[in-house]
Amino acid sequence: MTQGSGPGTAGDRVGVWFVGAKGSVATTALVGALAIRDGLASGLGCVTELPELAGTPLPGFDSLVFGGHDVLDVPYRKRAEELAAQSVIPGQLLEPLTDALARADDEVRQVATAERDGHDAGAAQRAQVARLRADLEAFVGRHGLARVVVVDVSSTHAPVDVADPDLASAAAVRAAWDAGRSPLPASALHPWAAFEAGAGFVAFTPSPGVDLPCVVDLGRELGATWAGADGKTGETLLKSVLAPMFVQRALRVDSWASVNLLGGGDGSTLSDPVAARSKTTTKAAGLEAMLGRHVPGPLHIDYVPDMGDWKTAWDQVRFSGFLGTAMTLQFTWQGCDSALAAPLVLDLARLTAASMAAGRTGVVSELGFFFKNPLGSDEHALAVQWQELLRLTGSLAEGSDA
Amino acid sequence: MTQGSGPGTAGDRVGVWFVGAKGSVATTALVGALAIRDGLASGLGCVTELPELAGTPLPGFDSLVFGGHDVLDVPYRKRAEELAAQSVIPGQLLEPLTDALARADDEVRQVATAERDGHDAGAAQRAQVARLRADLEAFVGRHGLARVVVVDVSSTHAPVDVADPDLASAAAVRAAWDAGRSPLPASALHPWAAFEAGAGFVAFTPSPGVDLPCVVDLGRELGATWAGADGKTGETLLKSVLAPMFVQRALRVDSWASVNLLGGGDGSTLSDPVAARSKTTTKAAGLEAMLGRHVPGPLHIDYVPDMGDWKTAWDQVRFSGFLGTAMTLQFTWQGCDSALAAPLVLDLARLTAASMAAGRTGVVSELGFFFKNPLGSDEHALAVQWQELLRLTGSLAEGSDA
Amino acid sequence: MTQGSGPGTAGDRVGVWFVGAKGSVATTALVGALAIRDGLASGLGCVTELPELAGTPLPGFDSLVFGGHDVLDVPYRKRAEELAAQSVIPGQLLEPLTDALARADDEVRQVATAERDGHDAGAAQRAQVARLRADLEAFVGRHGLARVVVVDVSSTHAPVDVADPDLASAAAVRAAWDAGRSPLPASALHPWAAFEAGAGFVAFTPSPGVDLPCVVDLGRELGATWAGADGKTGETLLKSVLAPMFVQRALRVDSWASVNLLGGGDGSTLSDPVAARSKTTTKAAGLEAMLGRHVPGPLHIDYVPDMGDWKTAWDQVRFSGFLGTAMTLQFTWQGCDSALAAPLVLDLARLTAASMAAGRTGVVSELGFFFKNPLGSDEHALAVQWQELLRLTGSLAEGSDA
Amino acid sequence: MTQGSGPGTAGDRVGVWFVGAKGSVATTALVGALAIRDGLASGLGCVTELPELAGTPLPGFDSLVFGGHDVLDVPYRKRAEELAAQSVIPGQLLEPLTDALARADDEVRQVATAERDGHDAGAAQRAQVARLRADLEAFVGRHGLARVVVVDVSSTHAPVDVADPDLASAAAVRAAWDAGRSPLPASALHPWAAFEAGAGFVAFTPSPGVDLPCVVDLGRELGATWAGADGKTGETLLKSVLAPMFVQRALRVDSWASVNLLGGGDGSTLSDPVAARSKTTTKAAGLEAMLGRHVPGPLHIDYVPDMGDWKTAWDQVRFSGFLGTAMTLQFTWQGCDSALAAPLVLDLARLTAASMAAGRTGVVSELGFFFKNPLGSDEHALAVQWQELLRLTGSLAEGSDA
Repeated sequence: MTQGSGPGTAGDRVGVWFVGAKGSVATTALVGALAIRDGLASGLGCVTELPELAGTPLPGFDSLVFGGHDVLDVPYRKRAEELAAQSVIPGQLLEPLTDALARADDEVRQVATAERDGHDAGAAQRAQVARLRADLEAFVGRHGLARVVVVDVSSTHAPVDVADPDLASAAAVRAAWDAGRSPLPASALHPWAAFEAGAGFVAFTPSPGVDLPCVVDLGRELGATWAGADGKTGETLLKSVLAPMFVQRALRVDSWASVNLLGGGDGSTLSDPVAARSKTTTKAAGLEAMLGRHVPGPLHIDYVPDMGDWKTAWDQVRFSGFLGTAMTLQFTWQGCDSALAAPLVLDLARLTAASMAAGRTGVVSELGFFFKNPLGSDEHALAVQWQELLRLTGSLAEGSDA
Repeated sequence: MTQGSGPGTAGDRVGVWFVGAKGSVATTALVGALAIRDGLASGLGCVTELPELAGTPLPGFDSLVFGGHDVLDVPYRKRAEELAAQSVIPGQLLEPLTDALARADDEVRQVATAERDGHDAGAAQRAQVARLRADLEAFVGRHGLARVVVVDVSSTHAPVDVADPDLASAAAVRAAWDAGRSPLPASALHPWAAFEAGAGFVAFTPSPGVDLPCVVDLGRELGATWAGADGKTGETLLKSVLAPMFVQRALRVDSWASVNLLGGGDGSTLSDPVAARSKTTTKAAGLEAMLGRHVPGPLHIDYVPDMGDWKTAWDQVRFSGFLGTAMTLQFTWQGCDSALAAPLVLDLARLTAASMAAGRTGVVSELGFFFKNPLGSDEHALAVQWQELLRLTGSLAEGSDA
Repeated sequence: MTQGSGPGTAGDRVGVWFVGAKGSVATTALVGALAIRDGLASGLGCVTELPELAGTPLPGFDSLVFGGHDVLDVPYRKRAEELAAQSVIPGQLLEPLTDALARADDEVRQVATAERDGHDAGAAQRAQVARLRADLEAFVGRHGLARVVVVDVSSTHAPVDVADPDLASAAAVRAAWDAGRSPLPASALHPWAAFEAGAGFVAFTPSPGVDLPCVVDLGRELGATWAGADGKTGETLLKSVLAPMFVQRALRVDSWASVNLLGGGDGSTLSDPVAARSKTTTKAAGLEAMLGRHVPGPLHIDYVPDMGDWKTAWDQVRFSGFLGTAMTLQFTWQGCDSALAAPLVLDLARLTAASMAAGRTGVVSELGFFFKNPLGSDEHALAVQWQELLRLTGSLAEGSDA
Repeated sequence: MTQGSGPGTAGDRVGVWFVGAKGSVATTALVGALAIRDGLASGLGCVTELPELAGTPLPGFDSLVFGGHDVLDVPYRKRAEELAAQSVIPGQLLEPLTDALARADDEVRQVATAERDGHDAGAAQRAQVARLRADLEAFVGRHGLARVVVVDVSSTHAPVDVADPDLASAAAVRAAWDAGRSPLPASALHPWAAFEAGAGFVAFTPSPGVDLPCVVDLGRELGATWAGADGKTGETLLKSVLAPMFVQRALRVDSWASVNLLGGGDGSTLSDPVAARSKTTTKAAGLEAMLGRHVPGPLHIDYVPDMGDWKTAWDQVRFSGFLGTAMTLQFTWQGCDSALAAPLVLDLARLTAASMAAGRTGVVSELGFFFKNPLGSDEHALAVQWQELLRLTGSLAEGSDA
């Protein structure tokens, strides 16, 4: 594996700004990026370190600068210790990274969860966005960054009514603010601020935000670059290779039952049925698209506290073959959520930064490989998404050679 | 789903000649083909009936004529009843197909397993081949067939020493015969006879035969068409989508344990370690090719009598991700061997016939999609093989339009 | 295995009256009892046919007479064909049992689901009970039965408020009827009528009924015999041997997740969360009792239409051992619901009849072996319940010897 | 949980002498015993700490002294670190136990694997036994021990020919020594030496030894106390509750396939088919005894290096129920071998010591609860073994009250 540092980005310092900076995924990504930079770990799990992507002009791990927002104010060292106790990250990394983690703490800004003064909701929300934007701009200034990618790895928010006229366009949002309303859901504030600050945005959660009509409108207006949504890390990853297999072999899937048991913060959030709806919706949509029709079967996400950051997905697929004979595939996936998500977060930050450097604007639809709900694409089959990813990195490599 | 009958093959009657004609796979394929022809069953499980292959000039199910060789002389009706009792084929198909199955019995020629007179082994083997060829030619004459595809679905034979100089070329075989030796293993007699009779050949088992240097040489000499080897029906099918997934996601597979429990004739044959070696070799080779290196882990094939024609494959894949975190995927595949194999056998017969009609000679490497050991190709990833298959059917469709 | 026919019951004809007589469980039990009687099937699956119970004075299969209530009026032959198509019962049994099944149809009385005239609900419910009782008494008279056991195998009903003062005693129910109220839930009408008719009662479902204070009161008043509740056929059966294993080995269960996928009528009923509450409550209670405390973990019952009468239960048990090391047990149970329930239904009918013959009244708590919610007992561990069952059959054998 | 210290053993110091003292099981048992003694860990996983055994006069953890033999000379601290890296024991225990572990190192005597001088094999083996005995007697003297229990947790040895006349009695062994032969297999030297030194013996592995006729003879001659063989920690533990369940429910087991994947030293040893024979024999025997007959199905033990001290057992049980309907149970047990074995080793040492204190001699057959091959008993069902264990502890408690 090689550390990409193509000619187009050489020397450039690139910011990675996490929404949910003290969460398990961001902490694991940070610890890993520092460990790879310092030669303490390999790039295992990083798609951007595969030989097939070798020529892509990606920012190197030594040129990444990390910062972010969070509601928590807990030191990274403490979070890392908690993750090490759960076998998410190797304990022996903590000592050599002590100083780097402490410095990273300084780049995290605390945000209050919900401030409502009651006087003028529109002005309040406008101010909230301005504060987020100011944090980003200060981050750029402090480190002389060539560009920043904001990555949302915070807790999942519930879906919103996308038909709300206040959300129809950037202008509609501004008009609503003027009228004293606060139309944006919390998860849309960060992409809005990112676009205003000239940053790229990666939606790693299923929360509504970067895909709302008004946010897309703002992104187009400002020539922003973004990708999403909802990282494809486990069960859905498997679905994206198994479903095409059934289709290509003319086997009819009769039912597909999915059970997800997980602990940790994510499990706790998703045990709330309303918040879970975002997740179950994106999980189910892809399967339907790949199979060409809806198939029955429950899709459960359950909180099992003692599992911590680990997750078990059990699926039963029943299918019919020749002469209607019914058969069964069952799988059990036992993975570490943060260990699966963190390298993809780094991949996405690097690929989005490289796309920005190449002048690419709008949604980077070729990054669907990483997502349950690939914005800008209807393709869910991993093998096809892999070809699309290689087309993107090929064109980035070509652009940088010119 | 549509029954392909492109312009190039309209009206042509095509023979499908099974080696192992009274085995479970051939019987299921026969029953199914007749049922589809008579509108009693859909083409479920048949890749050639997928919309993506719609324009391919394939022989229709109503133009297929079935025959074959077997050591057993048991009526198809009885075999079909046995399979129905195991839920391999629906019992209600037996009654309406009674006459058609009886007629099919007339097209099966019995072959003795091993006749050794001791006088002149060379002459004996030459005569054996001649007999097989004569059976094929009589089949063609009896039905006025445009072409025949011989499909080997007989029991697996043990590997042979491919470095044997007697097997180095067609001429070497003939010279060995002249010298009183019988160099060809039993599983090579059928492809040899098929090529001499102008028939195509599909190796659906891992037995040595069509891939021996001498047989390949004969096939080239006579402009024959063939494909193989070892139908990819279950566990290996899953491996061919899961292994690329791990590779593309930069996850390192540390071990891959495979357990296959099966009853029936195949289970019994494969519980013999020598015969099983053909199967375990082709099963293991693909995984290594896809992962780029050998990974530890047992590969068991066990005979469990009460499972009959059903098979359970259980695999445990252990893999490492970001920062070396170890994770696990386990799957359980419960399939009906004959129901999985039979439609592929029909697909291969139709696609090979269409390739022959289009003047294609040599190994049809684009049919690797169907095989554990894709002759003429190093590609084992299903998604890539699917693209190759579509390239083949696209070119066949184009050729027939011209 | 032997067909019990102890001295005490020789010659006695015993009635088995199913509530839900045309359901899958009752149909399978009927077909099986007739097949065993006629020597067409062994007593596989019947606990009462085990050598350990050999001396028990049970009614033989040739002395059982079947009847019942149902809302459906479909012939048994048709129901049996449907079950044979799902591999629940062997198709070859249908032909030889044709006449016997037709005769059994004559013994089933149709009941309307819910008749409400609005005039006097109390009188209406009293009349409903009287009708059920009359059907039972006519059944006894028609066949000269020594005794009858009513077995409830109908769809599950939702729980009721057991604190309702109208349900506090038999007298309270009668007073409520006099006052024009209809306090009994539908599932309590059958045990009430059974007790009035001098019949025994087995609650094979979790529906409220025989365990309501008023019904228990009536049973005591009339010296009735009963057992229940909710047949322990699959996942809960496994729990009743696995949970004691963890406890006896000092392993702490940290979470126990249970997923039940099933089709058929039962699956459809239980996909209604309200009706399912009866089932999930009895399923969860036993685990808590055996482990000595509540453990977290979801308990799902999902309707998967294509599974028909088959059921997959998948459980994940996470437990901690020495020094807190966390480990995992997962199991997958793939069973046929009716094939598992039917022999237990016959066992319970025979054992309850034998208990009645021996003069036993009240709840037969030693039959907890068969139930998720063992009435009259707190014991859920199968091994202990087995000893209790042997104590019962031992005492029945002794009584009949005297 | 309580630390048993009945009146009979108060103040007594008891030695636990491990054969294989530096192996994973012994190291885990030692670390755990010290941690429990020092209040750093609970008695989780220790059967002897269950409330049901509370009154038994067992030696307390503070009165146990550890020593042993091993071929390796590696400090306990290092072995413990290796185990902590594999999540077998919690890393935070290492620091507080540093001194205690160093002191434990002093009690381990190195033994050469196989010393053969060629001169007089009989004298050499006699001397070997004498050296082992001397080590034990010095251990007793050094610590003023009331009694010692030798526990064999070393690598598994292959079976021997028990019909060898040299092994027929203690006298036969001595005569063979006199004649210059060395009849005892390596695994029999330790129990022989233990009995001569007045120590008890626990065979926690399936190696031949304490169950050889000559060793049993010696034990009887000297009034020794012993128990065995082959700790029942995982898959066989499950079999010992599941097999009785099938039997008691009259379900016929048609096949039982068992796959064991394990790394570590044990996996490596057992990948040798000859050594594995001891293990597979004891594993299979119990199942046959519980089911009342042999059932088909493979039993694999495979070495998967990356699994380290962890083990996955996957079993498929196929069974037939009512009317012959075939059904399936599959389970996946993912356990840590040493964490499962270590507390049982401590349990056995304590229970054997208490039995010795109570004057019990010969094989303690009531300890079959802990073993795959319960010496002195034909009972394999866990629930019955549990009752036998309680009978033993009850009698020990009674004896100590008197």
